[in-house]
Amino acid sequence: MEIAILDNVIFLGTVTVLSALQNVFFAYTVQNESVHKRAGHTAFDRVNVANHNCVDVYPTFLALMWTAGLFCSQAPAAFAGLLYLVVRHKYFVGYLGETSQSLPGFFFGKRLMAFLFITSTAGIINYATNYFFEINFLYYIQTATKASAALLLIP
Amino acid sequence: MEIAILDNVIFLGTVTVLSALQNVFFAYTVQNESVHKRAGHTAFDRVNVANHNCVDVYPTFLALMWTAGLFCSQAPAAFAGLLYLVVRHKYFVGYLGETSQSLPGFFFGKRLMAFLFITSTAGIINYATNYFFEINFLYYIQTATKASAALLLIP
Amino acid sequence: MEIAILDNVIFLGTVTVLSALQNVFFAYTVQNESVHKRAGHTAFDRVNVANHNCVDVYPTFLALMWTAGLFCSQAPAAFAGLLYLVVRHKYFVGYLGETSQSLPGFFFGKRLMAFLFITSTAGIINYATNYFFEINFLYYIQTATKASAALLLIP
Repeated sequence: MEIAILDNVIFLGTVTVLSALQNVFFAYTVQNESVHKRAGHTAFDRVNVANHNCVDVYPTFLALMWTAGLFCSQAPAAFAGLLYLVVRHKYFVGYLGETSQSLPGFFFGKRLMAFLFITSTAGIINYATNYFFEINFLYYIQTATKASAALLLIP
Repeated sequence: MEIAILDNVIFLGTVTVLSALQNVFFAYTVQNESVHKRAGHTAFDRVNVANHNCVDVYPTFLALMWTAGLFCSQAPAAFAGLLYLVVRHKYFVGYLGETSQSLPGFFFGKRLMAFLFITSTAGIINYATNYFFEINFLYYIQTATKASAALLLIP
Repeated sequence: MEIAILDNVIFLGTVTVLSALQNVFFAYTVQNESVHKRAGHTAFDRVNVANHNCVDVYPTFLALMWTAGLFCSQAPAAFAGLLYLVVRHKYFVGYLGETSQSLPGFFFGKRLMAFLFITSTAGIINYATNYFFEINFLYYIQTATKASAALLLIP
């Protein structure tokens, strides 16, 4: 594709490739555990559940990140996607440890998902107001998004 | 991205964001049930199965909706996607009720998926005939698609 | 969308539609087995597991194929995607047979996934070098990718 169009998606694509690599890493961990499955095989069960929880949310995450990046601003969406990968890794590793270490619930990265959702909704609403009333406040949305993306780093 | 390109995907993106929101709602329902899990825990099992059936078909649905929207016409594809979300919600809620209420099978929205599949196939075939024989009947396909999209509303 | 942009994704879209069709075929096989479930119901279990393994990797496969096609060259990525569909079909059918016939592990098509991953990484790295140092070796990457795509046919 031409460079001009790729400019709009290069960061999103990079994060997507990284997330695919992480998925493959998770799948390999499950496979390794299944080979060394022992009588109690609690380790395999835990890895399997952690992998399933991650895989279940993966399409939702990809869809939100791409819509946020396309309809609003690219860099904050890719940044939130990167943070999501870090959170997911922590979740996966935490699940493998002792039960007391494992994180509660099976839905993680709620704040990042909410950020991506709000961003893409703002972009879509802006498109609608631009179409109907010719009011375009995309620039302000993008500035606010970039500023608030730093807040995602707060644990 | 420029407004000109976004014009082609804005409806698809909106439906994608809505479907992601619905996915998150399903995931929260499962989490709530898992917290209140009781001895028989049939409710949790049912919610879990319903969520899994929805999640399993989700990437296929997204892929079909986007190819149908890109290669053929956007509005009918987004309309079929919206209807699919409604059908999915009914399926999920129906699964939670009594066993007699739950819908048979685990693959739902067949008609909508078939519509999206036929639309995208027609678009791809039209691209091929346009490339090889320079025959372009995309306009007729789009008219037929728009007309037949209303038929999807028949229960 | 305009024909000029569709040129860049038509093969990827075709393979995506084919993979969606295959997913639906897998889902129907599971449904058929679940209707004829008998006492031992090992056949249903096996079909179910095979379907789940295929569905779990599906979003990762789609993401890798599209990033490889967008950031590097389209035809080899679509070709690898087609081969992946063949491998997946063999895996699914092999899983249904006797236990001795079933393929080991639950992650298949490793070589194809690695090819898609390397291709998309090369495209992203080329974009970065083009941006920072104005060195563009995309043409050489594409030639190498096309030449090495034939090697994927070796069993």
